[in-house]
Amino acid sequence: MLHNLFKPAALTLAAASLFAASSVAAETKENDATATTERHKVKATTITENLEFPWGIDFLPNGDALVTEKPGTLRRVGMNGVISNAITGVPDVVYKSQGGLLDVVIDPNYEDNNWVYLSYAEPAPEGEEGNSTAVARGKLIGNHLQEVEVIFRGQPKYKSNAHFGSRLVFSPEGHLFITLGDRYSAMDDAQTLDNHHGKIVRIWPDGAIPENNPFVGKEDALPSIWSYGHRNVQGAAIHPMTGELWVTEHGPKGGDEINIPRAGENYGWPEATYGVDYDGSIISKKTHVPGTVQPHYYWVPSIAVSNAIFYTGSQFPDWQGDLLIAALKASKVARLDLEGERVMHEESLFEDLVEQRIRDIAQGPDGAIYLITDNRNGKLIKISNADE
Amino acid sequence: MLHNLFKPAALTLAAASLFAASSVAAETKENDATATTERHKVKATTITENLEFPWGIDFLPNGDALVTEKPGTLRRVGMNGVISNAITGVPDVVYKSQGGLLDVVIDPNYEDNNWVYLSYAEPAPEGEEGNSTAVARGKLIGNHLQEVEVIFRGQPKYKSNAHFGSRLVFSPEGHLFITLGDRYSAMDDAQTLDNHHGKIVRIWPDGAIPENNPFVGKEDALPSIWSYGHRNVQGAAIHPMTGELWVTEHGPKGGDEINIPRAGENYGWPEATYGVDYDGSIISKKTHVPGTVQPHYYWVPSIAVSNAIFYTGSQFPDWQGDLLIAALKASKVARLDLEGERVMHEESLFEDLVEQRIRDIAQGPDGAIYLITDNRNGKLIKISNADE
Repeated sequence: MLHNLFKPAALTLAAASLFAASSVAAETKENDATATTERHKVKATTITENLEFPWGIDFLPNGDALVTEKPGTLRRVGMNGVISNAITGVPDVVYKSQGGLLDVVIDPNYEDNNWVYLSYAEPAPEGEEGNSTAVARGKLIGNHLQEVEVIFRGQPKYKSNAHFGSRLVFSPEGHLFITLGDRYSAMDDAQTLDNHHGKIVRIWPDGAIPENNPFVGKEDALPSIWSYGHRNVQGAAIHPMTGELWVTEHGPKGGDEINIPRAGENYGWPEATYGVDYDGSIISKKTHVPGTVQPHYYWVPSIAVSNAIFYTGSQFPDWQGDLLIAALKASKVARLDLEGERVMHEESLFEDLVEQRIRDIAQGPDGAIYLITDNRNGKLIKISNADE
Repeated sequence: MLHNLFKPAALTLAAASLFAASSVAAETKENDATATTERHKVKATTITENLEFPWGIDFLPNGDALVTEKPGTLRRVGMNGVISNAITGVPDVVYKSQGGLLDVVIDPNYEDNNWVYLSYAEPAPEGEEGNSTAVARGKLIGNHLQEVEVIFRGQPKYKSNAHFGSRLVFSPEGHLFITLGDRYSAMDDAQTLDNHHGKIVRIWPDGAIPENNPFVGKEDALPSIWSYGHRNVQGAAIHPMTGELWVTEHGPKGGDEINIPRAGENYGWPEATYGVDYDGSIISKKTHVPGTVQPHYYWVPSIAVSNAIFYTGSQFPDWQGDLLIAALKASKVARLDLEGERVMHEESLFEDLVEQRIRDIAQGPDGAIYLITDNRNGKLIKISNADE
C-alpha cells in the first residue's frame, strides 16, 4: 500500500511540509469512469486506494481532507492523492469488529480555533471491562493534535464490539450532536434514559450540557440525551432550510430508517420496527407503538445506510436540497428528491462506479461529492459533473 | 374464450337469471399461487381469464363485479368466474388504440337509484371528425342500462387515439371527478382553460356544474375544470382521512407522477416534468416551473401507472391506509406506506403472481384486492390473505 511508505514513526516531517512525495499524482485520467444518472452525467475519480478501513471524512479550509482510519489513525489526504503520516495525539481506541476510530468533524470556527473532533470506541479504565463511544477534540497544529480533551464518554462501559454509532454534526446554534448505537446485546436500554445506549446526544463543543436539553433536571435521566429509542445511528446531517437534525439508522436486517430526531422524542427501537428477516418473514408485528415516532422514510430490505448529506453545492444544480445517503451493503448512494421534508422520489446512484461498501460521504469545498469505502485498501473517490 | 359462449345477442336471459352456466367454477385450488410480502402472505386466485381487454372494475352491493371491456362491452362477473352476457344500453364507443369503453363506477347511492357511470371515447357527431372522452350514466336494471344520459363531453372533439384518461371517482361530498388526458398531440392545451385536454373535471352526478368550482365565471375557462396541467390521468382515489382526490398520471417515458389535485391548481405539464428518455437522457431541464405544483411522488423510469386505491379493508391489516398503485409496464402493484400524506416507503407487490399489465385495481366488499389485466384474454385476479 502506497501510504505505508509514509507511516514509519521515524519519518519526521516539517510542519510546513506535511505531505510526502508530491510526485504521486493519483488523479490521472485513466482511472476516471463516467455514468449517466436521471439528472446529471457524473465522473468518478479515485483519489487514492490506500486508506485502511477509512470511516470518516471532513474537509479543511484549504481543500485537503481529514480522514479517520478505523484502526486508530487520522490522516490528511490531498486531492492529488498524497496521504500524510499519521497525525499524532489521537486517543487510544478499541479496534475490534465495529469499534475503532470513527468519525471526524472540524469546528465551524476551525480557522479561528483549529479544533478537530473525533468519535471512537474508548476502552474502560485499566482493570475494568468494556468500552463505549467517546468524543475527544484537539487543536490541529501541523501534523499534531494538541490540547486533546475528552468531551463526551458514553455510559456505561459495556462488553460489546458492535453498534457504537457514531456521527458528529454541528447544529446551526453551535451544538454538537453525537449519534450512538444500542451496543446490540443492550438493545433494551434504548428505551430507558439512565444510559447512552441507543441515544442521540447534544452537547456544547467543550462538553457542557445545554440548559434546554429535554431531560435536564429529570430524575434518572442523563442530561446529555436529545432523543432515544434508536438502534445504530451512523449518519447525521442538518437540513439546510429547517436547521433540524436528520439521521440514518441501521435496521435489523430490514428496516433501515431515516428519522428527524426532535427533543425528547422516542423513535421506538426495539419496540417498533419495520424490519423483516432475510427470508421475508416479519420480525415484529409492531410497526406503530403509541408514544413513539414513525420513521420519516425506511428501506426494506436493508441497504445498510451509513452517512448522509444534504447536497447544497453548485456542481450538481438538479441535486440541490436532495438528501444523499451512502450505503454499505448496497454499495450505492440513494438520492432522495425532497420537496421540503417530503420524499418525492428515490434514485440509486453510483452503483457501477463504486462497487465497494461506502462508509462515508461528504460534499467538498468544490461542490464535488466524496466517498470513502470500507476496505483494507479503502478508496477515496471524487464524484464530479461530467458535463462541466 | 369461455364467455364467447354467452355473447350471441340471440341468447336472451331472464332478468332474474343474469348468469349463465353456474357449473363454471373458476375459483379452483389448482390456480392459486402464493407469495410472501414484507407484511402479509398473499394468495392469488384467477377468477376468470375470459375478459377482452378489461379496463375498469367496480363492485355491486351483492358482491358481483361490473367490468368494462375496451371494445365496448360492460359485463357482470360473479366471483365464481361466471361472466354475464353484454349489458345493453352502453353508448357507442371509438375502439381504437387507447380509446374504447373505459371506466365504470356505481353511484354511492346505487341501492336507491341504480345509477352506473361509464367513461368512454365518444365519436364526433355524424359528418364531423375526431373524438373525446365522455361520461354517461344509466340505471342498471337486470342486464340493461336504462334512462342512459351523457353527463359530460370533453371539448373539443379532436383527432387522436391516445390519452383519453379516464377514471371516475366520487368525492365524499357527492361530486364526480373525471380524470382526462392531453390527447397527446394536443399537449400544449393542458396549460389553457378553454378546453378539457389535460384537465381534471368536477361535476355533479347529473352533469351540473358545482357553483364553487374554481373557474366558474372566469372568462375563457370551462367551468367544469377542477385542475389542469395534467398529461394522462388513469388513476384516481379519495384519501380515506382527508377526503381529498389523489391521482396517478403517466409521465413521458419516465416521470410517472402522483398528484393531489387541488382546486384551480396547475400541475405543470408539459412545462415541467421529471421524465427522462429510455437511454437516461433528460427530456426537460425544467422540473420546477413557478406557479405549478410539484408532484407528490414520482417514478423514473416509468412503471406505467394505471389505477390506484387506498386500502381500507380488514383482510390486510398492515396495509390499511396505504396507497396501492397498479402498473401496466411493470406488471406489479406499488405499495406506498403512508404516514398521513407522506410516503415513508415503497414496496413492489405481486410481480411474480400476475406477469401481465395491470389495468385496474379495486378493493372488494370482502377486503380482498382485485386486479384486471390488459390482455385479449384478460384476467380478473383476486388477491387474498394466505394467513387467514
